[in-house]
Amino acid sequence: MIYFEDFEIGDRERFGRYEVTRDEVIEFAGKYDPHPFHLSDEEAAKTHFGRISASGWHTCSMMMAMFVEHIQSPPHASHGGIGTDELRWLKPVYPGDVLSMETEIVKKRRSRSRPEMGSLWTRMTTYNQDGVAVLSMITIALYGLRNPDAPIAES
Amino acid sequence: MIYFEDFEIGDRERFGRYEVTRDEVIEFAGKYDPHPFHLSDEEAAKTHFGRISASGWHTCSMMMAMFVEHIQSPPHASHGGIGTDELRWLKPVYPGDVLSMETEIVKKRRSRSRPEMGSLWTRMTTYNQDGVAVLSMITIALYGLRNPDAPIAES
Repeated sequence: MIYFEDFEIGDRERFGRYEVTRDEVIEFAGKYDPHPFHLSDEEAAKTHFGRISASGWHTCSMMMAMFVEHIQSPPHASHGGIGTDELRWLKPVYPGDVLSMETEIVKKRRSRSRPEMGSLWTRMTTYNQDGVAVLSMITIALYGLRNPDAPIAES
Repeated sequence: MIYFEDFEIGDRERFGRYEVTRDEVIEFAGKYDPHPFHLSDEEAAKTHFGRISASGWHTCSMMMAMFVEHIQSPPHASHGGIGTDELRWLKPVYPGDVLSMETEIVKKRRSRSRPEMGSLWTRMTTYNQDGVAVLSMITIALYGLRNPDAPIAES
């Protein structure tokens, strides 16, 4: 099991593979983000997208799918996400793209109110098959500690 | 058509209705966020969630569905989202919950590089049927101007 103590600021990991399909892009957008430019190439051609592209929330969800798969083995002592900061949809994601992602630990802090937990700030960047960053965010997640009885450092 | 000029800082709107169903929660989580606590009441009972709850990205997507429906009529001159700041999953969202949302314009700025556009910062808050805020974020979106030839104010 991977615990809060196992992460160091600056740690990076690169992983994941997600093939973006036209059917899934249209299904997701039809349900949750039915702008005409997400549903029709003709409408998309009138915008800077040029052709059908994925809803930004779909891209976030595909990133999450890669991340959750990654933290299954070895399992992570994650207690779920609190939120994200600085989420940016940097470039459109198109059907046919193949996504991957990178994580970088940017900050960690032991909880004072719940000494068995700590908060972990992770920059998550999603790339397309050309290595172009399409989505970036800093997630904040709660993690369990391996040694909850260790004293909380002052710094 | 609603343009950039039509928004004033402090403007608020309350709208939307989204019934969260157990089937949809499990389908979304199975595809994009397959933590065991999103898929099984038994596993959820071992966590602070208590029972199956929606993936945070699902809640974002349901909020987007309400928002996109809202901006269809009258249509908004939206050119899409750039990103979000301070996204926080404040409370779990459970099957059976009925969501609604509120928007508040918190900042607006005309683009200097593209004078026909402006950026709009909107605090979006999603509530459950008890009026409890479950999700909050500040979205940044590009909007078209009604009068692109108007001079850009210095302030």
